[in-house]
Amino acid sequence: MNRLEVFGVEGLGEIVRGADLAGMICDAVDLRDRDVVVVTQKVVSKAEGAMAAVDADDPLSHKPLVERESVRVLRRRGDLIISETRHGFVCANAGIDLSNVARGEAALLPEDPDRSARRIRDGIRGRSGMTVGVVVSDTFGRPWRRGVTDVAIGSAGRRPVLDLRGTEDAYGRELQVTEVAVVDELASAAELVMGKARGVPVAVVRGVDPAVFELDGPAGVLTHLIRSAAEDLFR
Amino acid sequence: MNRLEVFGVEGLGEIVRGADLAGMICDAVDLRDRDVVVVTQKVVSKAEGAMAAVDADDPLSHKPLVERESVRVLRRRGDLIISETRHGFVCANAGIDLSNVARGEAALLPEDPDRSARRIRDGIRGRSGMTVGVVVSDTFGRPWRRGVTDVAIGSAGRRPVLDLRGTEDAYGRELQVTEVAVVDELASAAELVMGKARGVPVAVVRGVDPAVFELDGPAGVLTHLIRSAAEDLFR
Repeated sequence: MNRLEVFGVEGLGEIVRGADLAGMICDAVDLRDRDVVVVTQKVVSKAEGAMAAVDADDPLSHKPLVERESVRVLRRRGDLIISETRHGFVCANAGIDLSNVARGEAALLPEDPDRSARRIRDGIRGRSGMTVGVVVSDTFGRPWRRGVTDVAIGSAGRRPVLDLRGTEDAYGRELQVTEVAVVDELASAAELVMGKARGVPVAVVRGVDPAVFELDGPAGVLTHLIRSAAEDLFR
Repeated sequence: MNRLEVFGVEGLGEIVRGADLAGMICDAVDLRDRDVVVVTQKVVSKAEGAMAAVDADDPLSHKPLVERESVRVLRRRGDLIISETRHGFVCANAGIDLSNVARGEAALLPEDPDRSARRIRDGIRGRSGMTVGVVVSDTFGRPWRRGVTDVAIGSAGRRPVLDLRGTEDAYGRELQVTEVAVVDELASAAELVMGKARGVPVAVVRGVDPAVFELDGPAGVLTHLIRSAAEDLFR
């Protein structure tokens, strides 16, 4: 029977610019081959120095940053902006976040979160010899439904989407649903053990069926998961 | 350390109209207090008889059903319709599904998936004495991102959204993100052990932090998770 374990990685310590995230993760947890390591965007941005200075006494001082990091603004209401980032993500405030960062700082999205994920994966392989999948996660809202969920903004080591084209259901009929966004489901599963307030920035998902999460080298979220306007019936 | 286990429940057997889903689940797995039982919409619809006859030789014969089950059509392209159901869900083909059902049948969404979840929860409590959360899950697409994920269409026994208003981050600052759609994350975690083709219609998530998934009697997805147009900046 397929069985997953999902657990948070605690005791990483404060992440500063230049921090060796892969090394810190390997120090904190005994990883196994085929584990999936989910790392929140916040610590990736801190380690990569994807931060900007803001006026800690002005709650709106990050707004010019939001404009700068947006290629298209979908909606504005009060202080909140829903926009598309240069990566192609649609989210609040261009993914810029003031929580769980020091006063006077704002965390931007990593420049290339797939590359961030590859670096962590390669670092873990170099340090521990283990071949893992890495997902960089962030917390996004969505239309029609209240509440936020964690989704993948970068991934490495595995295909982010499971392609079921040609697969048959239990009755021998070809499946209607053909692509499952496995990396998003992994990010959501990880969020359940991280929490927003507890400051657990890394989680491990162990036991993911290899058939569900195929090995596929360099492909990541940016190439596989961003949907073009032309093929997107939901927007 | 917070640790989740997620496992599929196999050996349930074929679900027919009138099936006692709660009893079948209790026969198949030893549940514990505070487990979350995720049940896919398909078996709930089968057990409740939320099915309709279609012409097995006509791939478009379910289309009139889709129109009937839709209160608002957002987009049409070829055979595919994105619409809003009477529940308030926005999804493809009004949630009507031909996979993993017998030839000549289509599964509709349950009439009130929160009520379905409550029935299963109550049935499990009556049968096993265990107080569990129940999530009824379905597979939806979404804008901007490729691939589908499983989300909650009904829930019972727990609050579907974790309200973090007033909670502080690790730096003592009030969190910007205030509501986490925990039931959707549970549905996504469960999908990772179910798969679309393997026909595992029920999964258990064990070890969910009670603080993350508060007990709250009757409230469900329909009252908590459907976002009105007025408060929805993403649509």
